[in-house]
Amino acid sequence: MNDPEAFAASSDAARSARPLRHVQRFAMSGPVTLERGGVLPGLTVAYETYGTLNEARDNAVLVCHALSGDSHVARHDDADDPGWWDCLVGPGRNLDTNRLFVICANVLGGCRGTTGPDSLDPRSGRAYGADFPEITMGDVVRTQVALVDHLGITRLRAVVGGSMGGMQAMLWATAYPQRVAAVALLATAHRLGAQALAFDVVARNAILTDPGFHGGSYYDKPGHGPDTGLAIARMLGHITYLSRESMQDKFEADRHRPRQLDTAFEARFSVGSYLAYQGERFVERFDANTYLRLSLAIDRFDLGGTPEALIRNLAPATCRWLVVSFSSDWLFPPDQSRELVRALVAAGKGVSSCEITSRAGHDAFLLENELDLYGPLVQALVAHAGDGAGSPPIPRAVDALGHDPSAIFYQDRLDYARICALIPAGASVLDLGCGTGGLLRRLRERGGGRLVGVELDQRQVTVAVARGLDVVNADIEAGLAQFATRSFDVVVLSHTLQAVRGVEHVLDEMLRVGRSVILSFPNAAHARHRRRLAEHGRAPETTGLTRYHWYNTPDIRLVTITDFEALCDLKGWRINKRIFLDTATSGEAQGDPALTADVAVYALNL
Amino acid sequence: MNDPEAFAASSDAARSARPLRHVQRFAMSGPVTLERGGVLPGLTVAYETYGTLNEARDNAVLVCHALSGDSHVARHDDADDPGWWDCLVGPGRNLDTNRLFVICANVLGGCRGTTGPDSLDPRSGRAYGADFPEITMGDVVRTQVALVDHLGITRLRAVVGGSMGGMQAMLWATAYPQRVAAVALLATAHRLGAQALAFDVVARNAILTDPGFHGGSYYDKPGHGPDTGLAIARMLGHITYLSRESMQDKFEADRHRPRQLDTAFEARFSVGSYLAYQGERFVERFDANTYLRLSLAIDRFDLGGTPEALIRNLAPATCRWLVVSFSSDWLFPPDQSRELVRALVAAGKGVSSCEITSRAGHDAFLLENELDLYGPLVQALVAHAGDGAGSPPIPRAVDALGHDPSAIFYQDRLDYARICALIPAGASVLDLGCGTGGLLRRLRERGGGRLVGVELDQRQVTVAVARGLDVVNADIEAGLAQFATRSFDVVVLSHTLQAVRGVEHVLDEMLRVGRSVILSFPNAAHARHRRRLAEHGRAPETTGLTRYHWYNTPDIRLVTITDFEALCDLKGWRINKRIFLDTATSGEAQGDPALTADVAVYALNL
Repeated sequence: MNDPEAFAASSDAARSARPLRHVQRFAMSGPVTLERGGVLPGLTVAYETYGTLNEARDNAVLVCHALSGDSHVARHDDADDPGWWDCLVGPGRNLDTNRLFVICANVLGGCRGTTGPDSLDPRSGRAYGADFPEITMGDVVRTQVALVDHLGITRLRAVVGGSMGGMQAMLWATAYPQRVAAVALLATAHRLGAQALAFDVVARNAILTDPGFHGGSYYDKPGHGPDTGLAIARMLGHITYLSRESMQDKFEADRHRPRQLDTAFEARFSVGSYLAYQGERFVERFDANTYLRLSLAIDRFDLGGTPEALIRNLAPATCRWLVVSFSSDWLFPPDQSRELVRALVAAGKGVSSCEITSRAGHDAFLLENELDLYGPLVQALVAHAGDGAGSPPIPRAVDALGHDPSAIFYQDRLDYARICALIPAGASVLDLGCGTGGLLRRLRERGGGRLVGVELDQRQVTVAVARGLDVVNADIEAGLAQFATRSFDVVVLSHTLQAVRGVEHVLDEMLRVGRSVILSFPNAAHARHRRRLAEHGRAPETTGLTRYHWYNTPDIRLVTITDFEALCDLKGWRINKRIFLDTATSGEAQGDPALTADVAVYALNL
Repeated sequence: MNDPEAFAASSDAARSARPLRHVQRFAMSGPVTLERGGVLPGLTVAYETYGTLNEARDNAVLVCHALSGDSHVARHDDADDPGWWDCLVGPGRNLDTNRLFVICANVLGGCRGTTGPDSLDPRSGRAYGADFPEITMGDVVRTQVALVDHLGITRLRAVVGGSMGGMQAMLWATAYPQRVAAVALLATAHRLGAQALAFDVVARNAILTDPGFHGGSYYDKPGHGPDTGLAIARMLGHITYLSRESMQDKFEADRHRPRQLDTAFEARFSVGSYLAYQGERFVERFDANTYLRLSLAIDRFDLGGTPEALIRNLAPATCRWLVVSFSSDWLFPPDQSRELVRALVAAGKGVSSCEITSRAGHDAFLLENELDLYGPLVQALVAHAGDGAGSPPIPRAVDALGHDPSAIFYQDRLDYARICALIPAGASVLDLGCGTGGLLRRLRERGGGRLVGVELDQRQVTVAVARGLDVVNADIEAGLAQFATRSFDVVVLSHTLQAVRGVEHVLDEMLRVGRSVILSFPNAAHARHRRRLAEHGRAPETTGLTRYHWYNTPDIRLVTITDFEALCDLKGWRINKRIFLDTATSGEAQGDPALTADVAVYALNL
């Protein structure tokens, strides 16, 4: 291991065990009865704040930390220790402390200032140890609510959290719906998968069976407590925080060259010495009882094991939701976020999601390298959650994400006005392949019903969210299952049918989800295309821009008006309206539309 | 945990610690010097055999077991204990013991009969314990070679192994090339990935730091040795043997209902009680020192960290190779098998591969549920490795795998004869999208050069391998990178261009890999198609069979003769030969081929 970066690149490896200099304390008087029946005689919450609470008290954002985090989310000044989310939180950052009042508290049961197992039990005069009660995420959030009360804040602009922090944000949204306008969940889940649960079980067993554990009452014992078990738990944790790809990237080149460490653990192989190092550093700053309590609280967190239960538990929420996952995160994998998003959509909540392509694994949500998309997404959520005063405008860089040539070209697409005209005022609309939200913005300007977009491209999703739209990041070829039957008045597929592989499946799904369907496509049988094939023996090129040819066009289906109507006939889809457009005249096509229309718009239902 | 199956479904959970009744023993006299310098005064190999060695002594197959396996690969009779690979090995099974002589030996360093750390060291009169030397996979294979010598077998028909067993098979192929005709590798790798290595490090640390370990000399100590550490290692191992999906399948439904166990471990959650059970059963039948020795031998196994090193190390092999991986195996993931296959192809070896779609994770290679494809593949390899006498014919069921209508239809495709005629005798040929091998079989009948197929569909790969062809399971859109520049005389893409998304990329790659390229495609500008669009406004339907239409055809590109030649012109590809066919007359097209040919065949080069 010759690359010192590899030792520090993970979430909190670089952090010291030094006391935090900017911590404030808030005392909750007791007795406090916890969800699982335990009682604390009182407790202290250690927290830090950044920026200034405005007069309206409406610029506050609560950041919730993950298992091994603490209140020190960002540095307070240049002389300060690094924070665990410096890349996101600070002056001019996506969570801009020049405008926002950011709060971060160490969780209940923690070991960095808030009351936890290593705190003094006033009843016995010794550390709680084994006597510290079991805690839940609900207990954690209750202490945060008390803190927010104490700070005089009625309603948070947003709660933002990744991993275990995201679980807390979910509870804010569902248990305290009046207290939060928006939640941003990163790399998290409404409940752990069986594999993630299994890793936690093994990690806890390593601690529980360490002879130094003494049933949890090890603070006054000679030696160091269950340091070996905790280090092994941490080693295991580290593997799950990284992806297989990122481990290859870090450790393959110098596989057989471990760093020389003075360690009780095996330090063979580059990756072995890394794990030994991480394990041993962790025990210097973390308490095994805290690990056990929080790990179990994570494992017990459960918003529902069936879609029905999940939808029921999400029902009370009134805030806007942002759900971000990372492709290589196998601890909190994207498919779990997809389940949550599906339930939020089904429950009628305002939700955007983004499944960010990343090699960094679960740790991605903490890394500056990955900030490109998740930073603007969080910023956009916070900006649109308030009146805008507390948030900076969406930066140019984000808007630029959407500026590929076709996006410009389609800003004023001929079919948009016709599609809008077909949609009744106040109708709920699902726009498939919504891009950066051109059609949805038009519809929003008219006011009215619920508007949701679906878009595969992550960058376009980010732009659309920055524009204040609700957009789900999904592939329409597979992703319509997440929308309930008859859940929208209108489902739109504009200028996309020709790029769909599973034409029948997508149309069947659209007709299931929507009371009616509106779609537009380029007519491959326009006279120009007919002549091209008949006279020149060359394939039609239906894409408006000239950069595509038969061998590289995304338009993999040649859709003609005649063929499309034949399919409608075959499938029993009723055509309620057809509009045939001629781009050359920017108006309706004259004569036989099968020959003269280059764009067709249809309204269908079953 | 209410489903007893879930406790037994994994690789060897159902196996007992009872002594094996059919074990034979072979003694190697010493001193035996091992690869890492250790010396054993002598050793015993415990093995079992099934079936009868024929007179020619050419029907022997060696099966190599994985980390926790032993010599009992299959039951010897109905009264016998289950073997760990009963589904594959036995009378009438894919490794048919009515015809084959199957040998399986417990590995050196093992704890099931072959000399290992728990064996008596004749020099001290006590168990070796900490004094047992470090071993390598090379040492393991050397004892197997000695055993095969002892059995009077000059050349094995095949060596078959999964996981660690596959590593042994690789060493047979490369270190003893004259001794083996074929190797079948399942769920294995030429060296572990960093993540798999990391899990092994954590598992070893759990054992090494167990106070019961006593540096490895625990056999005469009171208590049980490092049972806790070994159980934790096993729990961790179990997680890696299952996939995320299969853990969901097993443990989600009864997540909160653990089986009641009398255990020192945490038994919360269904999955927790499963792991506790697996951990505790394992220590009853396995030795921690064996675990450490074998785990380290696996970690050190390394056929090359770069493509160049790997190719160099594979060079001595002369056998045929079969490389099988499973899509959900994240311990030995398919991409590692792909690397190995790439190197084997580059080294000019005869290799087939199959990436089997499975939810079962690493354990898939042991499961009867997954036998459908891997069983016939192994059987085919063994059948074609000898003169056929020792193997049953490929069962009808396998042949039936290839019998979808299009496969029948294309048995005598019009373009095959023309393509064959264009290929010089003795040329090496890579056939992309080879299906069940129709063209390759024709070429093989002519005799001559090296023939390799590439096919995406696993079932078609299985049929082609059963027919004795070398076929790599890969997607040609991404998979040509594995073929070296100018490594084939001819690269063929017959009747597939119209289904390719990345037309330029695939053609560029073909022209890189082959000295020349031959391709055929249906001409979308045939007069029939022109009339259809021009007169009826309907898209051409180029697929021969009528079941496809514009909305569901796999032919996503409309390729016309004129367009194709224009692309060749644009890209500077030289057309050496063009043949235009008319299916109606089964001969060459008359008149203007752009209008009259329904199939075009081209030979190109750069």
